Amino acid sequence: MRDFRPIFLVTGSLLAVLAVAMGIPAAVDLYFGNPDWQVFAVSAGFTLFAGVSLILTSRGSRTHFTLRHGFLMTTVIWVALTVFGSLPLMFSEMNLTFTDAFFESMSGITTTGSTVIVALDTAPPGILLWRAMLQWLGGLGIIVMAISILPMLKVGGMQLFKVEAFDADDKVAPKAAQMSAGLTIIYVALTVIWAVMLWAAGMTGFEAVCHAMTTIATGGFSTSDGSVGHFDSALIDVITTFGMVVGSLPFILYLRVVRGDVKTLFRDSQVQWFLTFAAATVLITAAFLWVGKNLMPLDALRYASFNIVSIMTGTGFATSDYSHWGAFATPVFFLIMVVGGCAGSTTCGIKIFRFQVVFAAAHTHLKQLLQPHGVFIPYYNRRPISDEVIVSVLGFFFLFATTFSFLALGLGMMGLDFLTAMSSAATAIANVGPGLGDIVGPAGNFSSLPDGAKWMMAAGMLLGRLELFTVLVLFTRSFWRE
Amino acid sequence: MRDFRPIFLVTGSLLAVLAVAMGIPAAVDLYFGNPDWQVFAVSAGFTLFAGVSLILTSRGSRTHFTLRHGFLMTTVIWVALTVFGSLPLMFSEMNLTFTDAFFESMSGITTTGSTVIVALDTAPPGILLWRAMLQWLGGLGIIVMAISILPMLKVGGMQLFKVEAFDADDKVAPKAAQMSAGLTIIYVALTVIWAVMLWAAGMTGFEAVCHAMTTIATGGFSTSDGSVGHFDSALIDVITTFGMVVGSLPFILYLRVVRGDVKTLFRDSQVQWFLTFAAATVLITAAFLWVGKNLMPLDALRYASFNIVSIMTGTGFATSDYSHWGAFATPVFFLIMVVGGCAGSTTCGIKIFRFQVVFAAAHTHLKQLLQPHGVFIPYYNRRPISDEVIVSVLGFFFLFATTFSFLALGLGMMGLDFLTAMSSAATAIANVGPGLGDIVGPAGNFSSLPDGAKWMMAAGMLLGRLELFTVLVLFTRSFWRE
Repeated sequence: MRDFRPIFLVTGSLLAVLAVAMGIPAAVDLYFGNPDWQVFAVSAGFTLFAGVSLILTSRGSRTHFTLRHGFLMTTVIWVALTVFGSLPLMFSEMNLTFTDAFFESMSGITTTGSTVIVALDTAPPGILLWRAMLQWLGGLGIIVMAISILPMLKVGGMQLFKVEAFDADDKVAPKAAQMSAGLTIIYVALTVIWAVMLWAAGMTGFEAVCHAMTTIATGGFSTSDGSVGHFDSALIDVITTFGMVVGSLPFILYLRVVRGDVKTLFRDSQVQWFLTFAAATVLITAAFLWVGKNLMPLDALRYASFNIVSIMTGTGFATSDYSHWGAFATPVFFLIMVVGGCAGSTTCGIKIFRFQVVFAAAHTHLKQLLQPHGVFIPYYNRRPISDEVIVSVLGFFFLFATTFSFLALGLGMMGLDFLTAMSSAATAIANVGPGLGDIVGPAGNFSSLPDGAKWMMAAGMLLGRLELFTVLVLFTRSFWRE
Repeated sequence: MRDFRPIFLVTGSLLAVLAVAMGIPAAVDLYFGNPDWQVFAVSAGFTLFAGVSLILTSRGSRTHFTLRHGFLMTTVIWVALTVFGSLPLMFSEMNLTFTDAFFESMSGITTTGSTVIVALDTAPPGILLWRAMLQWLGGLGIIVMAISILPMLKVGGMQLFKVEAFDADDKVAPKAAQMSAGLTIIYVALTVIWAVMLWAAGMTGFEAVCHAMTTIATGGFSTSDGSVGHFDSALIDVITTFGMVVGSLPFILYLRVVRGDVKTLFRDSQVQWFLTFAAATVLITAAFLWVGKNLMPLDALRYASFNIVSIMTGTGFATSDYSHWGAFATPVFFLIMVVGGCAGSTTCGIKIFRFQVVFAAAHTHLKQLLQPHGVFIPYYNRRPISDEVIVSVLGFFFLFATTFSFLALGLGMMGLDFLTAMSSAATAIANVGPGLGDIVGPAGNFSSLPDGAKWMMAAGMLLGRLELFTVLVLFTRSFWRE
């Protein structure tokens, strides 16, 4: 794999797209009369130049695109977009340091939603829009990747979601392009629908667009320091909650729904498990809020459903400082952070199907152990699970726990207290957004962390978003050996 | 499996042994003129009665001993010994509640070392000896189980340690008995050697015997609230540190050493990994103490080696309140808590061989992924690892993380703060002893926790000691179905 041109070609093309995207906040800032429009224009020009240069210098490679190219390309794309995406943040009137701008940009593109910016409410509209757009593009990117690249790389059991239509080798590219186009249309349509609903519910048009983008992308950036709690509207809470759920389901199923097969969505076992688990956690938490905190039942349900769904799906909006919901809330929020939504959605974290695979495998293993001469096969979504998938999924859990441990250890060594270090590590790897406690919790902010901690967390976000293995494999000797 | 008599027969026999063991603290209390000798005598009588009754009513069963009997028996034995072992604690002048006595007894038999007793220094000698004996018997029990029962139950990859000599079915029982006898002699010999060394280093004979027992058993009960730090002796620290290391190596290798094959110990890859990892962690921590806390290099090495080895092996002695060793120490101690020692030793936790299996499997998986047409086989200790073992080990990690999560969640819901809940859950499942923070840390004590938390922790200790699966399998429907 001496020829990196295929990788540069794709990266260059995506940088060109990013440059075009920067035109939008430039136009918005110009419209609102904010001088920051120049920053976006210059950043766009610079990014376009870099992108086009890469394209021009990398054309004409006849190298066969290998699995190794796939791994390397995925990481390179994500890092390159983060670096160029941070330019407007660095040079705008926000005056972020490179560390802060990189952190914010990574938090955006990975749909994490942790922020180092204080006083969002007075920030220029271009910057607010750009943050939302980074998450929105990142969300779309991961949906496309989940059907096109990840199953090929076989990371963490994602091979389960190999689309059968892709099996015939010669037709992969056109099929993938067609399906990606379909997914993009659905993604845009859902964003528009939610923007209209949020606007109708009382947000300004600008706020509605920004929040619709970060809701469907389960990103969590808001236009206010108070997050969605700033609007203090039950209607907005409910719309956003449903939007986060919609962003957490496998987008490929929406393609089938559009074609008239609505039942397919609810017949999918991952969707069933996700909705059941979310509903159960919400109800238990609401009951605790009702009994323990003396909230009215409907209020308890409103706050529990919004914040539980927000953290479980890795969105990261908040309408209440759940750090003060009592002793039971901290461990609950800490644990649901890592659960995530469905594979093929914009959510991150461990994801529901992995729990299903492990439960099915454990059940089979147990029966096998007790009846050594029987033959038992584990099933996922009515199909047998191969041993390869089981090992991949269990390996993912191990990698997740190990990466989390080392990140928490590193953050602890930077001087963060236990709760801050543990929850920051979890929120980064699971791409959630807020941590727990007074410093990085829903009422806090990541700006006060030392620079080293921000770089560690940014690395954690990248690892988590790309399913760990995709990035970690680049650090092995075997990968670079011919 | 309607006939439980084979299980009752073994349990009854072990209760009879426990009753005889109670005679020793009775004699010691009588010698020191403490009226508690009567409590031990009565408890012994009661336990002997229960044991003999079980034996008499369960004789003569001709039922074939199945795998299910093996699972159930393991858990029943551990719980029965805990209940009867708690009798002297409950009725002595310590006046413990049943909850506290059960917690202390479980903490003893599982070689955990968490204590709810305050003012150990003024406690009657019989009670101190009994606590040490519970750990010593528990340590011996687990060594014997690790070669006889666990490989048969195939829990968490323990089938790797199936002794070849046991393969010929008809000779299992005599071989196992012979080997158990050999292990018992070595265990007793090591305890005697360490008792003599500790006595020579300045402990009283009584203290030396108690500490030798809880050191070789990697248990961690001490005769003083200050633990081994009470003696404030570098020599005692060093002797104890080596004792904990000796207790963490596979005891079966000592059998070979005694037969003249000394090299076998250091040729074992698990031993190599364990010693390397422990040494590296000690050196890093010592460097931090030297640079960060301005300790003299030798002092830094002394405190780091003692406390790191103590926590990593799950012993749980302390010579310093490492809660105040700075920000880096908390996550380090939290993480090494779960590492454990070698399989076949008295230690608990995840254990070194599981990390080795996962690393070997990951390495192979990676090479396979990059070269789909190659054939790669993972090795452990120069032997190929079967897929079954890999799945068992990965499943163990998953089960460990899940059990830990639920226990931490439960403890959090009882009102414990985050650090206390998290570290108490880890210390219970990994059978370490002290937690972290001011309440349950090395300078604290578990007495102030609510009763519910103590019961949860006791359950966690049992789960951890019996490799999780052994106990959890009893709660599945498949297990009880004919």
